[in-house]
Amino acid sequence: MAKLVLIRHGQSQWNLSNQFTGWVDVDLSDEGVKQAQNAGKLIKEAGLEFDYAYTSVLTRAIKTLHYALEGSDQLWIPETKTWRLNERHYGALQGQNKAEAAKKWGDDQVHTWRRSYDVLPPLLDANDEGSAANDRRYANLDPKIIPGGENLKVTLERVIPFWEDEIAPKLLDGKNVIIAAHGNSLRALSKYIEDISDDDIINLEMATGEPVVYDFNDKLEVQGKTKLN
Amino acid sequence: MAKLVLIRHGQSQWNLSNQFTGWVDVDLSDEGVKQAQNAGKLIKEAGLEFDYAYTSVLTRAIKTLHYALEGSDQLWIPETKTWRLNERHYGALQGQNKAEAAKKWGDDQVHTWRRSYDVLPPLLDANDEGSAANDRRYANLDPKIIPGGENLKVTLERVIPFWEDEIAPKLLDGKNVIIAAHGNSLRALSKYIEDISDDDIINLEMATGEPVVYDFNDKLEVQGKTKLN
Repeated sequence: MAKLVLIRHGQSQWNLSNQFTGWVDVDLSDEGVKQAQNAGKLIKEAGLEFDYAYTSVLTRAIKTLHYALEGSDQLWIPETKTWRLNERHYGALQGQNKAEAAKKWGDDQVHTWRRSYDVLPPLLDANDEGSAANDRRYANLDPKIIPGGENLKVTLERVIPFWEDEIAPKLLDGKNVIIAAHGNSLRALSKYIEDISDDDIINLEMATGEPVVYDFNDKLEVQGKTKLN
Repeated sequence: MAKLVLIRHGQSQWNLSNQFTGWVDVDLSDEGVKQAQNAGKLIKEAGLEFDYAYTSVLTRAIKTLHYALEGSDQLWIPETKTWRLNERHYGALQGQNKAEAAKKWGDDQVHTWRRSYDVLPPLLDANDEGSAANDRRYANLDPKIIPGGENLKVTLERVIPFWEDEIAPKLLDGKNVIIAAHGNSLRALSKYIEDISDDDIINLEMATGEPVVYDFNDKLEVQGKTKLN
């Protein structure tokens, strides 16, 4: 029986300042570092040993993974980074303060952008300064798949191919896997793994830096879900 | 023209206490952390951008790589860890204080173990507690290749296949590479790259945490070598 641990990155500097982050490469806050270190301690206490680690190409998730692995004496396991585990791209909202956005567009509109399953935020153009098209880390991607903004549905559609091709085969082979990623890329994964409906998924909240452990049987059916805290 | 950066891990706790380390997974000292962070700063100032990162499966090298990449805003590049970049295995000397070893076996003998190209140290048996055969990180290796002790010659013979298969093709493809590793695995690489003789190689010293930059032409011939400090 394989185990999968999902961990949402520790608090970031923009979680703290209440800004839409998305693909902007914001660092962990001091509190976020502590949360990630604590995750490592919890993983060690639970005796969890991993075979493979996955994370996004965003610093806050990568550092969370490194703290969690270092704290559980397994910084040496193979690690793969992929844009497919990135946070949901928040389009033209990226960098904006959430309260100011609510003043500008109204509470209802901003709530819809944040909590609907399939409504897109205002998009960022590939020519905009903040576009991922100008970032070296996405230089090897087909420009057609670099998003200008995503909803949870689109996020799920680019996360799941990575699950299918990379992660599910490892779990089916009995290997233990840790994934450090983001609120919405992990929501997408949880939706798929637990078969949660489009309406219900938005109510799933993962605490920053709190490891969630799934136990699978050899048909990749969930046998248990535990939060470490 | 591709660039290769070699960086020896920052000072470790056993560099500080003057013990033979080898494959023992000793952490960086506080000074070692500072050296690695400074390496990141120097790499950023030099404007070096990498496509691939390689390191050993030992914490002190992995953390050095992470600090160097974080400090130069490229923690997101793909990273591969391999036992082939590990420090030379110091056999039964691992854990011993270097001065005490000199008292026990004599200065000349210890000098020979440290500085000869092809004399093996006293070997560790696979049944010994400290053997790498008991370490989960080597569980996927053919037990026949887990060393009980290595000289520089043997170290070179297991480093170079990784160079040939993984690193050289990247450089020939014009990609920039960073390798964070150890005094002797980097000595082995430098010997091969610069075609240094068996007698001379032992005089090559790399400072902890000091990035060394090689420039190659498209035939993988060295066009320049620069130390960042």
